[in-house]
Amino acid sequence: MPQSQGTSNANLLIDLKSIEANWSILKELNAPSSTAAVVKSDAYGLGVNKIIPTLISAGCKTFFVATIEEAIVVRRLIAENKILVLFGINTFEEASTCIEYNLTPVLNHLGQLEIWKKIVSKDDKGIGRPTPKEAWLHLDTGMTRLGFPNEELEAIKTNPELINNLNIGGVMSHLVCSENVNNPINAAQLSRFTKIKLWLESYIKFNAMWSLANSSGVFLGPAYHFDITRPGAALYGINPQPEKKSIMNEVVRLQAKILQVQRVDTNQTVGYGATYKVKKPGRIATIGVGYADGYMRAGSGFAQAYIGDFRIPVVGRISMDLITLDISAVPERYSHVGSIVDLIGPNYSVDSLAKDSGTIGYEILTSLGKRYNRTWEGIGNTVKN
Amino acid sequence: MPQSQGTSNANLLIDLKSIEANWSILKELNAPSSTAAVVKSDAYGLGVNKIIPTLISAGCKTFFVATIEEAIVVRRLIAENKILVLFGINTFEEASTCIEYNLTPVLNHLGQLEIWKKIVSKDDKGIGRPTPKEAWLHLDTGMTRLGFPNEELEAIKTNPELINNLNIGGVMSHLVCSENVNNPINAAQLSRFTKIKLWLESYIKFNAMWSLANSSGVFLGPAYHFDITRPGAALYGINPQPEKKSIMNEVVRLQAKILQVQRVDTNQTVGYGATYKVKKPGRIATIGVGYADGYMRAGSGFAQAYIGDFRIPVVGRISMDLITLDISAVPERYSHVGSIVDLIGPNYSVDSLAKDSGTIGYEILTSLGKRYNRTWEGIGNTVKN
Repeated sequence: MPQSQGTSNANLLIDLKSIEANWSILKELNAPSSTAAVVKSDAYGLGVNKIIPTLISAGCKTFFVATIEEAIVVRRLIAENKILVLFGINTFEEASTCIEYNLTPVLNHLGQLEIWKKIVSKDDKGIGRPTPKEAWLHLDTGMTRLGFPNEELEAIKTNPELINNLNIGGVMSHLVCSENVNNPINAAQLSRFTKIKLWLESYIKFNAMWSLANSSGVFLGPAYHFDITRPGAALYGINPQPEKKSIMNEVVRLQAKILQVQRVDTNQTVGYGATYKVKKPGRIATIGVGYADGYMRAGSGFAQAYIGDFRIPVVGRISMDLITLDISAVPERYSHVGSIVDLIGPNYSVDSLAKDSGTIGYEILTSLGKRYNRTWEGIGNTVKN
Repeated sequence: MPQSQGTSNANLLIDLKSIEANWSILKELNAPSSTAAVVKSDAYGLGVNKIIPTLISAGCKTFFVATIEEAIVVRRLIAENKILVLFGINTFEEASTCIEYNLTPVLNHLGQLEIWKKIVSKDDKGIGRPTPKEAWLHLDTGMTRLGFPNEELEAIKTNPELINNLNIGGVMSHLVCSENVNNPINAAQLSRFTKIKLWLESYIKFNAMWSLANSSGVFLGPAYHFDITRPGAALYGINPQPEKKSIMNEVVRLQAKILQVQRVDTNQTVGYGATYKVKKPGRIATIGVGYADGYMRAGSGFAQAYIGDFRIPVVGRISMDLITLDISAVPERYSHVGSIVDLIGPNYSVDSLAKDSGTIGYEILTSLGKRYNRTWEGIGNTVKN
């Protein structure tokens, strides 16, 4: 028996070859700009321990995470490459940790900049380094989330000393609507980012890398690529152009075994709240995956699954550990206790499950639960957790 | 710096004293019937390692989990107590594991019963035990999910040998609409369960415990209690009577630090898709919790948070690692970088966040993410992960 909490009832297969191929597709599209990889949230829930080596072997050299704690985990996997911390630093302790682990904070506002300035100048005096540690700046061009807002950029304009002695290795911003090619906000953000670039470069001397595009931003064309792009979602198989057929490789397959089959008739209902009334005699299969496994409850009555090419709708409410599927259309030899059901697979992508669950593929991936028996395939040997 | 992946940006506090108190409240209500505890899905996401000892010290002796893997984790925590596996067993290997770890499978259908029968009779011969290992039966009285359906009960009626030589320690069923006191399905299930009890006891000799009620079922009154009830949700602070004020103690508090504050005006939007248009000059706070932390994206534009007693609505889309809050109404001395926001707390319960996220408290709890800095309080010393 497995020693982990992974259940034999459901297998999550993660195809590392697809991730490598996806990074290479994006790299080609971005050339001559560079291509980083966003690996925050445990590489979108797919396991940073397995995915970092895959991306390194693909040629990726720059990694973005959200928190310092995530960055430390990545630093333990890679000694040399650049690790950028999107949340930046809000305390001296966090700044010291960045220096200790050779992490590059992305500074989001004046408060973060001031803490960093104090730490690196102190660090300089103490250790006598010729150049202070690198940091990036994040400019807010429309997200109103993280990043220097207008008024704080004006402060830098007025007082260039604020960043003059810092080692600003990069300047980034983040797109609001990049998956929607025709949204005028894209061009507005591009224009704003370019304008800030021009005046920052005229006011202050520094040679920073500039970065604007996330996965979908790559597909907005070379004007959006600048020096380096930062794809995340597309690496993990999410379609970066929702209006077109995806050119990315699917990465995830989620399969579960049927635990029980029941014959049902029109006097019966299925699941909590008796929301699903059986419409004609048929068969219901129960499988051991539920919302505690990240199979979102919002998909109740909408989500689909497959046995081979037979579509089997999820019927009744999704419960914590179980879902119920209408398998009436599937021959019994393919739909008995122990038969394998694809919850995510060739016929039903992460994006499809997301759509039927009222959300986006990103949330499906990052919610994938702890109880799955996870297997990483491709790139050297198949690895089990 | 913490060695775990827990982030200093957000703290999840789990009050073990409240869990102990909640179990005791239910125990009083159930008396003279016994009270078990459902600890599947890592004790509804709150940490089985900490919660089992708490429930043991409260007096709980019987624990329900979903999978065999979960049961093994619980068995490592407790040597003696009864651990019931709701998914039962579908292979000889699973059955052997139950025997090896002294787990009690809940048999859900004839296929599971037959596997168990073979294993325990073999086990008997091999080791010469006087009584075969205990198993429970799960009867389907309306869920159409797991449990013996009618036709398979008829098979037992026709051929009592199927269970006659087994050690059936308990018989359970599961309520469909128990949180809805006036739903006639409750009485229908009770009647069906009672009827099956009568004829099973007349056809076949066994002294089993009978169990029907989950958390909400406890509040349907003594007729539903039988020998032992199986509360889960109510232990963890979810209101088992959604139509009334909760009598359970809140268990969870989720707090996060403000990472950045921006002044905004009416020409601005907030977050992805520019869905939130700023209505008047104000201030937006960004905090480092998002749907990758189980703060569900469906709450975008609906979820609320608090700084002390000031209500601060979530505005704009919830993103993977970040949310944005309108803090215009909060004095600046309470709402600056580093200020603490209650995402779940005294003013806003798990049930409230669930309602505003279009789901139930169960899904909020079981989705609580891995990046929180988790602290268990009460019962002996405060324990950090």
